[in-house]
Amino acid sequence: MLPKQELPECPVATTVELIGNKWKLLIIRNLLDGEQRFTQLKNGIPGISQKVLTDNLRIMEEEGIISQEVFAQVPPKVIYSLTEFGKSLLPVIDAMAEWGDNYKNNLN
Amino acid sequence: MLPKQELPECPVATTVELIGNKWKLLIIRNLLDGEQRFTQLKNGIPGISQKVLTDNLRIMEEEGIISQEVFAQVPPKVIYSLTEFGKSLLPVIDAMAEWGDNYKNNLN
Repeated sequence: MLPKQELPECPVATTVELIGNKWKLLIIRNLLDGEQRFTQLKNGIPGISQKVLTDNLRIMEEEGIISQEVFAQVPPKVIYSLTEFGKSLLPVIDAMAEWGDNYKNNLN
Repeated sequence: MLPKQELPECPVATTVELIGNKWKLLIIRNLLDGEQRFTQLKNGIPGISQKVLTDNLRIMEEEGIISQEVFAQVPPKVIYSLTEFGKSLLPVIDAMAEWGDNYKNNLN
């Protein structure tokens, strides 16, 4: 997790600082359905590059949002999942899902 | 608003596409408290540049999230506010505020 003194005063800004980019939000959405391997994540997020996915996964692990489990086999198997803390983002993603639905329903 | 065919299938991805960047989320947070002039917005969002704020405001107007009202005076006065549709983002911002609070409370 990030040290408290590096976070903004405002709780919305804190959340934005931690998850406020397109890719992180989509990674969280995917992992809310359950753990995934790297390739599953990559396939589930159209347009994401290997480097951007790797970078965001590393940062999210540092932030305490996801964890990775490495199985010593050939080739190595790595499983990504949300931590309990990451799972607490469900209401944020749910609110986004509801708004996205409304947006689409209001279009002609 | 964007044409329906340009939006992703998934409602979360739709929302991410529309508001999934740090600056848009902070602009929305600021306007949820009421209409603001350009300078108020700029001062209320530490680190945002004039160009980035201008660009995001223009895009958000195209998306139907905010509206601007121009008063013909010298110097011209421009007021930005959320549309009814933009205001419907309140539950998303509320969920983010709650999560940000929890995150900070769980830090040592």
